[in-house]
Amino acid sequence: MALLDLSKQVALGIDIGGTNTKYGLVNHRGEILEKGSLKTEDYPTAEEFADALYEKVSPLIMKHCGQRHFDGIGVGAPNANFYTGTIEQAPNLRWKGVIPFAKIMTEKFGVPCKMTNDANAAALGEMMFGAARGMKDFIMMTLGTGVGSGIVSNGRLIYGHDGFAGELGHTIVKPGGRKHWSTGSEGSLEAYASATGITITAKKMRAEFPTSMLNDYPEEEINSKVVYECATKGDPTAIEVFRYTGQKLGEALANFVMFSSPEAILLFGGVIKAGDFILKPTKLHMERNLLPIFRNKVKLVFSELDEADAAILGASALVW
Amino acid sequence: MALLDLSKQVALGIDIGGTNTKYGLVNHRGEILEKGSLKTEDYPTAEEFADALYEKVSPLIMKHCGQRHFDGIGVGAPNANFYTGTIEQAPNLRWKGVIPFAKIMTEKFGVPCKMTNDANAAALGEMMFGAARGMKDFIMMTLGTGVGSGIVSNGRLIYGHDGFAGELGHTIVKPGGRKHWSTGSEGSLEAYASATGITITAKKMRAEFPTSMLNDYPEEEINSKVVYECATKGDPTAIEVFRYTGQKLGEALANFVMFSSPEAILLFGGVIKAGDFILKPTKLHMERNLLPIFRNKVKLVFSELDEADAAILGASALVW
Repeated sequence: MALLDLSKQVALGIDIGGTNTKYGLVNHRGEILEKGSLKTEDYPTAEEFADALYEKVSPLIMKHCGQRHFDGIGVGAPNANFYTGTIEQAPNLRWKGVIPFAKIMTEKFGVPCKMTNDANAAALGEMMFGAARGMKDFIMMTLGTGVGSGIVSNGRLIYGHDGFAGELGHTIVKPGGRKHWSTGSEGSLEAYASATGITITAKKMRAEFPTSMLNDYPEEEINSKVVYECATKGDPTAIEVFRYTGQKLGEALANFVMFSSPEAILLFGGVIKAGDFILKPTKLHMERNLLPIFRNKVKLVFSELDEADAAILGASALVW
Repeated sequence: MALLDLSKQVALGIDIGGTNTKYGLVNHRGEILEKGSLKTEDYPTAEEFADALYEKVSPLIMKHCGQRHFDGIGVGAPNANFYTGTIEQAPNLRWKGVIPFAKIMTEKFGVPCKMTNDANAAALGEMMFGAARGMKDFIMMTLGTGVGSGIVSNGRLIYGHDGFAGELGHTIVKPGGRKHWSTGSEGSLEAYASATGITITAKKMRAEFPTSMLNDYPEEEINSKVVYECATKGDPTAIEVFRYTGQKLGEALANFVMFSSPEAILLFGGVIKAGDFILKPTKLHMERNLLPIFRNKVKLVFSELDEADAAILGASALVW
């Protein structure tokens, strides 16, 4: 067998979300050669989804590398299990039950397929190509509609005995606190630090402060983006929404630090557009809740990667 | 060089506590050939401690294996750092500052010395010789005067980037809750689930319930052992002390499960003598706070090893 030229090898990275799926052909240097997307929700079954994806992607594979240099497929998806290659009971997907997604993809594309959840994929992307390059211990928090996490320890993702480790958004930060709209748990981090949680906080706080600019918007328009706009205009209530969010997030991060003592915590996702409005109180309350041996050691930083690219790159990294 | 007969190789396992130090000579099968102890607090410096230990142990080494078959020393100690071999700012030891303990031991005994904190040593002991045999993902909680923890993920202890990971006793379980007597933090797990925490809870609760048997004891005699005795006699207040403790512990464990998804959580230390009085509420509140995908999967069990032996065995396991 002739030696393969590694520089020619390509992987397909896929980031499956409830609404959209993004994919990219990635080479060993972490360059995305082609990318595209399709609507996840248009496909009633995973098989139909795989067929549609194949139609789109196979010409690109032929163009860039041919089947011989196509190493495999990496997938980040909600509730994806690294060990079994299945997507299990994902609340945001139309495909119900336990879906043998890796098997479906391998049968369609003729290459191995590895999977992990979306936040883990983003963490891998950061480790290989982003702000966590060279780090062996860090935590990635994705603050979007929900709160996800990927935890790297000793240079490896923590999957746990069943592949489901790293559900930090569902840890309880305020026992008996705000009820989660979907899980029903009381006081989870996601209920406060997600975009959804920020919207709830904003609606509560604007009702308490009638002079807040937040009251200039109709109820259905209140979201984290609007809160950010009001905060930049100096509205104290909007600023307090982020301060309170940062406090809850910082308290949670302190607990996570005392678990795995990471070199850095990377924040990622739509919520970080609030910048210092959220970063400063998060850092303050994280430090305040740490034992002295952990203080002023953990880097709290925003992700360096474009959000879509991180997940595609991380998913492709599963292949190698 | 002649091949070494592995069955003859011996390691010295040492468990350093604030008051007492226990040590044992251990072979590859996890058999403790000799054990003994000395008073840690009798020695103002680590050098004097090493001298005294050497006087006691070197005749035993000569008797069992000779220097040629003596592989090394493993130490479990409070605030011991696996990476640097130092004991750093341990609040319960007379030796202040940063002590290069591994170096002191190696110079004295002429063999390599590895260190980790006491709870990590106990976790290693359980993994090699106890209830966690064959497990790659578990958490060990030591519930004694304080609350310590050792976390194993992917078959390896989690040390974190600086060697200080696994301080789960200091995670906050009730923000703004009970102030910790030493760290000053508010609402940490140790403030509730340690023997010290249980004593505080008992003193509070007996004041609220004048008919409780706990009121038959003078203030200074109240401790977790007395609470256990009253609970076995059916005193509702004593039972409530353990129920409340178990609730706080169970809520904390749920968060830990969603972090690393362990196959089991092992409980260890003096507090577990309370048996089902503490185990049942702990399990109830752990399960109640877990996402459905984690429920009824995590084994919550008591350690199988004798408390002193676990730490000695675990420390010796650092050598191999």
